[in-house]
Formats: sequence, C-alpha cells, structure tokens
Amino acid sequence: MLIDIALDAMGSDKSPEPEIRGAILACRQLQVRVHLIGPERTLRPLLAKQMHRVGARHLPIKIVQASEAIGMDEKAVHAVRSKRDSSMRVGLKLVREGAVSGFMTAGNTGAAMTTAKMVLGMLPGVDRPALLAVLPTSTGKPCLLLDVGANVDCRAKNLEQFALMGEMYARTVLKIDRPRVGLLSIGEEEGKGNELTREAFPLLQRLPIRFLGNVEGRDIYNGHADVVVCDGFMGNVALKTSEGLARLVRESLRESLTSTVTAQVGALLSRKAFNDFKKRLDQSEYGGAPLLGVRGVCIVGHGSSNDRAIMNGIRVAAEFSQANLNASIEQGVISSAAAASVPAVGSPVNSAVATGGSAAAPLVE
Amino acid sequence: MLIDIALDAMGSDKSPEPEIRGAILACRQLQVRVHLIGPERTLRPLLAKQMHRVGARHLPIKIVQASEAIGMDEKAVHAVRSKRDSSMRVGLKLVREGAVSGFMTAGNTGAAMTTAKMVLGMLPGVDRPALLAVLPTSTGKPCLLLDVGANVDCRAKNLEQFALMGEMYARTVLKIDRPRVGLLSIGEEEGKGNELTREAFPLLQRLPIRFLGNVEGRDIYNGHADVVVCDGFMGNVALKTSEGLARLVRESLRESLTSTVTAQVGALLSRKAFNDFKKRLDQSEYGGAPLLGVRGVCIVGHGSSNDRAIMNGIRVAAEFSQANLNASIEQGVISSAAAASVPAVGSPVNSAVATGGSAAAPLVE
Repeated sequence: MLIDIALDAMGSDKSPEPEIRGAILACRQLQVRVHLIGPERTLRPLLAKQMHRVGARHLPIKIVQASEAIGMDEKAVHAVRSKRDSSMRVGLKLVREGAVSGFMTAGNTGAAMTTAKMVLGMLPGVDRPALLAVLPTSTGKPCLLLDVGANVDCRAKNLEQFALMGEMYARTVLKIDRPRVGLLSIGEEEGKGNELTREAFPLLQRLPIRFLGNVEGRDIYNGHADVVVCDGFMGNVALKTSEGLARLVRESLRESLTSTVTAQVGALLSRKAFNDFKKRLDQSEYGGAPLLGVRGVCIVGHGSSNDRAIMNGIRVAAEFSQANLNASIEQGVISSAAAASVPAVGSPVNSAVATGGSAAAPLVE
Repeated sequence: MLIDIALDAMGSDKSPEPEIRGAILACRQLQVRVHLIGPERTLRPLLAKQMHRVGARHLPIKIVQASEAIGMDEKAVHAVRSKRDSSMRVGLKLVREGAVSGFMTAGNTGAAMTTAKMVLGMLPGVDRPALLAVLPTSTGKPCLLLDVGANVDCRAKNLEQFALMGEMYARTVLKIDRPRVGLLSIGEEEGKGNELTREAFPLLQRLPIRFLGNVEGRDIYNGHADVVVCDGFMGNVALKTSEGLARLVRESLRESLTSTVTAQVGALLSRKAFNDFKKRLDQSEYGGAPLLGVRGVCIVGHGSSNDRAIMNGIRVAAEFSQANLNASIEQGVISSAAAASVPAVGSPVNSAVATGGSAAAPLVE
C-alpha cells in the first residue's frame, strides 16, 4: 500500500528542480505516491528528463495542476488571499478532501501556515498551530523544539498546548518512550525565566507528561531533553542562531583545512569521517518541520532544501500521517483542558466532557 | 604604566587555579598589575608554586584578602546580602575607590551583576545594566550581542539603551568605525517581530547610530552586523544554544575523526588546521562579557574559564577601562533621552542643550 503525499513543486528557492528530484528519490526509497503540485506544462518535461537521467521508467508520481506559486518574499496573508490557485492551496485541499495523507512544501513558511490554518482548520482544543523542528543531539537521538516560528507573543496556555503536542509527536511519530519535556528558560530553578515561562511552568507541571522543568539553550543539543517548548519568537531565533553558527563552523573548518598542503592531505584521508560528521549535523537528513495543531498533515521544509531534504520531508509527512497523531492531539488537548476543570476553557467539544472524573482521570486514554 | 585590574580568585568552577595561572599569563603578556582577591592563606602558596613552575620571580601580582567566596549555585540576592566579605564585593569596592581600573570574575553571573549594581551604582541615564557577549563571525571580526542575561522582561526603552551602549563599546573599545547595529527579530521587515521588538524598532531608528533594522539569528555569526540588540532572556537563550551546538560539533567531529585509523592519520596531519579552527571559534579567546551601564568596569567570564580565558578577561577589563567608555555612555544616553523630547533628531550635543526639563528629564539625574 502506497501512502499518498502531495508535494508543492514550487516551494524551494531553486524550485522545481529539488522537488522533482526529491520526489523521484522518495518514490524509489519509500512506500509513497507523490502528487506533484504546480504548473503541469513546466513540470512534465522536467520530470521526464530527471526520470530519464536516473533511468526510471515508471514511478508513482502524479502531476496535479496549480497555476500560481507563492514567492518567498510575499506577505503571507496577501499571497494567500490573492493567489487562489497556488500550489500550496491546491496541495492542502487534497489533504482536506482525503485524496492524500499529507502535504509537504519547502516554500514561504508564513504562507504555508496561513494556508494550512485556512484550508485545514484547527484541531478542536488547539488555539494555535506550532511549527516543530527536529534537531540533532550528542546522544544520536533527536530533540524536538517547538514552536519555531508560527507564533510570536504566546500566552502560557499556548505553551501548555505545544508541550502536549510535542510530547505526543515524540511518542507516536518518533516512538520515543516517555519523552522528557523541558521548558526553555535561562536557569533551571522554577523561579527563573521571564513572565511567560514563569506562568507556563505550573501549567506544564500539571500535565500528564514527564516534565523536566526549565531547561537552558544548551539542553537542546546535549540530549538532556526530548522535547523543548518555547514561544515562536524564541524558537525561531534559537533555530536561526544555530543555522548561522553551523554555517560559520563549516566555513571555518573548510578554510582551515585547505590552508596548507599537509592539512589538505589530512582532510582527504579524513574525508569519510567528515562526511559522517556532516551527515550527523545535516538538517536535510531531518526533512521539514511538521506543523502541529491543524486538521491534517503539513510539513514545512527550509527554502534551501535539496533533493535529500525534500525526500526526507516526504518521509516525515508519511510517518506523521501513519502515526494517527492528530487524533491523539485532539484527545490529549481536550483531556488536559478538562483536567484543568475550568468549564469554559478550551475547545467546544471539551466543554461537553469537562465534567467527568477527577483531575487526572480524563488524561489517561 | 601598568593598568591595575582586580581579579576574583574564587570565581571559576575550578578556582583558584585558572585564576592564578591566568593572572600570571596576563602579567607576562599585558601591561597590567593584577590584584588577586581571595583568602590570602590559600592563595599565597598556590601563587608561589605556579610562579615557580613557569620560572617567574617577580610579577606585578598583589594578593588582596577576602574571606568569603560566592558559589555558582547560590541565589544572587541572598549571597550578596549575607557575604559581606566576598571576593566579588572586595574587588568591586577597589573599583569604586579608584584603586583599580577594572574588575574581572568568572563566578556567579547573577551575583556579579547584583554586587556591581550595588557597589558601583548605575551610570546616570541608564536604567538597567546589560551583559555583552563578543562572538566570532565568518568575517573574522567579532559581533557583539547584548543583553545576554542581565535582564528578562525588558521594555523597549531598555533595548534603546542597550543599542547605544553596545554601539559605543564597538566604537571605543573595539575601534570599529561606524558600527552597524541590528535588532534581533524573526524577519527583516519593520513589522516583523514580537510586541517588544515592534515597539523598540522606531526608538532605535531615531538614535544617532547606523541602524540596520531587524536582523535574524543567523546574522549574529555571518558578519552582517557589528552589534545585535535583544532582551536578556532572548540573548541568554541564543548564547547558550550556541554553546550547546558548539559542543555537539566538537564531540561529533572528534568521534568521526577517531572512528578509523585512516581518519586518525588524516586528523593528525590536519592537526594544526584543527587548532586554528578551534582557536577561531574558541570562546576563551574572547575573554569575558563586559557589564555595561554600571559606574565602573566589570567583566564576567564563563564558569568554565581556563587560564587563557582569565587572561583575556583581564585584557578586556584593561581595554574597557582605557577606552573611557563610561563617560561616552553617560553622554550618549543622556543626549539620546534629550533628543527624544524634541521633534527633530539632532546631534547628541545639540539636543542635550535644546531640552532642559522636558519629558525625558527623569532619565537625567
């Protein structure tokens, strides 16, 4: 059984080439059928050429017509309103209609989030969607950081929902047993942090998750936590700071290693080791960032995605859709709101069940 | 002429060894006289031993008695109140009395800031001190990030003062001509960011500095900006995230390079290149973080500081005190506050004259 995934062919900075090659890679390595969304007249000859290049005759790739593409620099709200036939909207409509199990784009993040919220709608009980980044750690296992850009100026309740959604993603998609969840702050003690984190701390403490309390920036990479929760401003800065530092490291290393002949010979001998090293830290191995909290599967990749990153984004979409995560989120968020036992808080559905049991009972599935 | 610098001998995680060795290094390489603050009975034999080890007979190092030390995990406010004879307080009192030109500690950051504020007081016109980190970039020139931990929950006005102080530090201490100042946010357009950055943007725009507008996390390391301004929560997370990633990179590289014999030989040949590379990114080359806005020179180093980091911290203290920065900050902040009250943005001196008793007056003592 193939899993159907819609791919925005017009998303990445160098689209549609990385998307087409990524789709081919995905169809050869994964159990997926790719719906390639974009202008058919452009895509068909390019797809034929790339398939010919790799010697592929038949692959489960289907081109779906969309006449417009949203640019990287377009304002999200305006682009979403004015481009009714964008590849993003067409792809997400396929998700809503159930024609595909998930959607992946390496395009404008703001536009992807806005379109996903509009086309798919929110899961009941979730106030705001969160973008989740999967980052490497020194233990070899990933660390999930959320939100990395969907929300600025969050309230404590949003962080509570992010914690729940992130924990469930770790558990159901990444199969991490009892994921450890930390709240990103500037010191470990409960009292440390800013207004937002101090307010969120007791809310997270109350959740039926393995809460570590406050964690610091360095804990994102040292394997101390499986899930790190923060507001989108914070998370976006942390992510982009990391990108900047990673690039500096790469450049400095390359410069140092080519500065003398001896160093060059040494680098040549260590080439395999360097490739291992690069692969361990390479973002493209992790695919894109899942958007949690919308009714459906939407993965947002980096604009600089190459074919491997696109392939991995498709893989993430397939894994996400297979894990039946959204049902769990709905259940979990609703239960948690119920546990808070404030009748008015949370989703419409929640209010109906908010009465039953003790504080902890509804949280157990 | 030697510059007198007080050094907290009891600050770092492994104190007093790195401090004693760092003081010896500093006296041999820099034009400084070090006042080593701590329990004389402990320090005297250790200093003699280390001097003997390096074959030094006479060095301008003076031990100044302080009976107490503040631990890394002590609560700042409590430690400062209860330990009246701490090495930090004794050192900062030497600064206040003019016996030394600056103070350096690798101890508890919160306690150092609290003690500095209490003992030295604030510069007139500055509401809150800011801790400034000096970070490496791909151009080889440093980038200054502030605040990295002195203030959570900042107001826009605090960011304005940080921008002014950081710009002056870049200009007077690091001799950067017309430093470019960016506001840390999540997108370049003026409208992007959270409430705080959107409110701070027009204030920074109005300052007599070369304002780049919003910059992103990656701009800290790519040489795009000389000074990056943010609140202390943000800056602390960005700094510690960077520390975590740098450690991950080091560990992964070491692991990859020792995985096979070929890689090991290669790494051996590239050893000099690796050392160059490490030195370029090594925090200890940058010494400690200056605390800006207090009446005097106070440098706070990392708890893990080694002797080189201590020596560089002493160097930073000496450079800071030589630059006469605090007089400029006082002048600049007062002028800028004055300028805020007149419709046209004038030169600092003019607007200071132009105002008298305006809305901005409370900023002036």
